[in-house]
Amino acid sequence: MLDKSKLTTGELVRHACREGRLTGQTAGLAKGYTQANLLIVPQDYAFEFLLYAQRNPKPCPVLEVVEAGQVRPRLFAPEADLRTDFPRYRVWRNGELVGEPTDILDVWREDFVSFLIGCSFTFEAAMMDAGLPVRHIELDRNVPMYRTNRPCEPAGRFSGPMVVSMRPLSPLAAIQATTITSRFPGVHGAPVHIGDPAAIGIRDINRPDYGEQVEIRAGEVPVFWACGVTPQAALLAAKPPIAMTHAPGCMFVTDRKDAELTIG
Amino acid sequence: MLDKSKLTTGELVRHACREGRLTGQTAGLAKGYTQANLLIVPQDYAFEFLLYAQRNPKPCPVLEVVEAGQVRPRLFAPEADLRTDFPRYRVWRNGELVGEPTDILDVWREDFVSFLIGCSFTFEAAMMDAGLPVRHIELDRNVPMYRTNRPCEPAGRFSGPMVVSMRPLSPLAAIQATTITSRFPGVHGAPVHIGDPAAIGIRDINRPDYGEQVEIRAGEVPVFWACGVTPQAALLAAKPPIAMTHAPGCMFVTDRKDAELTIG
Repeated sequence: MLDKSKLTTGELVRHACREGRLTGQTAGLAKGYTQANLLIVPQDYAFEFLLYAQRNPKPCPVLEVVEAGQVRPRLFAPEADLRTDFPRYRVWRNGELVGEPTDILDVWREDFVSFLIGCSFTFEAAMMDAGLPVRHIELDRNVPMYRTNRPCEPAGRFSGPMVVSMRPLSPLAAIQATTITSRFPGVHGAPVHIGDPAAIGIRDINRPDYGEQVEIRAGEVPVFWACGVTPQAALLAAKPPIAMTHAPGCMFVTDRKDAELTIG
Repeated sequence: MLDKSKLTTGELVRHACREGRLTGQTAGLAKGYTQANLLIVPQDYAFEFLLYAQRNPKPCPVLEVVEAGQVRPRLFAPEADLRTDFPRYRVWRNGELVGEPTDILDVWREDFVSFLIGCSFTFEAAMMDAGLPVRHIELDRNVPMYRTNRPCEPAGRFSGPMVVSMRPLSPLAAIQATTITSRFPGVHGAPVHIGDPAAIGIRDINRPDYGEQVEIRAGEVPVFWACGVTPQAALLAAKPPIAMTHAPGCMFVTDRKDAELTIG
């Protein structure tokens, strides 16, 4: 049986993935190492997707682009292979899920371009290091996520509403969380909204569109951050003939440290 | 004769350009409005250039990309026309300067993609607002710029060393300038080096590679920021069959305010 407590670096996590020993979620593994979301598209979609990301950096913060014909992210994990080093993938054809394999060697094509996208794990770690509560982690749940009425800036075939994640905080903690996360523009940055859910088109805060509901206690306000589900939803709505993503919670663990992602 | 003091908004500056009344430098015009550099390449180079920018955000902070077939920057100046609204352009063929027209209507092609790049004017304004000295502005000179020994991350046909601009400051002012400019990642962000010029491959601080020399007084240290000449040098080294840039100092004045470019 896999002893997850021994997976203390990005390299060890990736080896466990490559050898088929780790096929599930990566939350809590290799503390301090940056984890990343994945989106893979055919070259024909790559410029438009990179442009969509440039126009929507809060929901879609690109950490690294791996060009067609390449499988190693030179900047974030130069020894890794993007086709094998996630615990689990999702393969989509025309926007429909067709498989959840543990590697994508058999579907790989030379014209695929891979995007590693920053993930909220990084700023949640910074919040917890500062003593701020992160409710869904305390409850061992997935973060609640909501579609909003705020459209992203479209680019080519990519468009759609911003999806946000929500963390309940006291007003003082919300202020502290704002200053802390503003220093991490590569992983969604500062919140996009604080308070009234209806102001951004959320009808029922207790019924998230993705993830799981968490309690907002007396004296707390909901704080909303742009969420990496946004580009994934835009990708699937564009219905490319083929695309790949990480399976939910099954991230890529890099060789870089969260602390390196601060501004400066 | 043009009364520059009346050009108080981006729109007024752009109208003066379009009507041929303004054909020179834009420094000091429309105070508070963000000015931008320009790079135009054929579509065939656009993905690689956007990727180069994504990998090198400090020297190449992209404010907006205007796609092939379009001439209006929807986000920064939706009424503008990029072909006429700069005071003066440079046209390059195979990396060689072939003209400095005041519009590019006659060379325009439907496959051109335009990049508006953040400019140091924005963070210099923020420094001066905070009471920090900006020596080359006091002396009415161009900022001194230097090629360094630090390579940029290449992307396709784009590569080359980082070019930096230098401003001399007291150690305390250098610290204040660092915190101020770190809040403007869209316009080069925090410095890339402070102190010893030789540490980044600069042999003689009194002989800049571009711009004009300025005095470093007793008790001051040179402070170096990534500079927008970097992507222009990379562009010309790639020798595309045709490319266009703004003429030096002849920027695009947008409808957006510098204050909007802070993180958050």
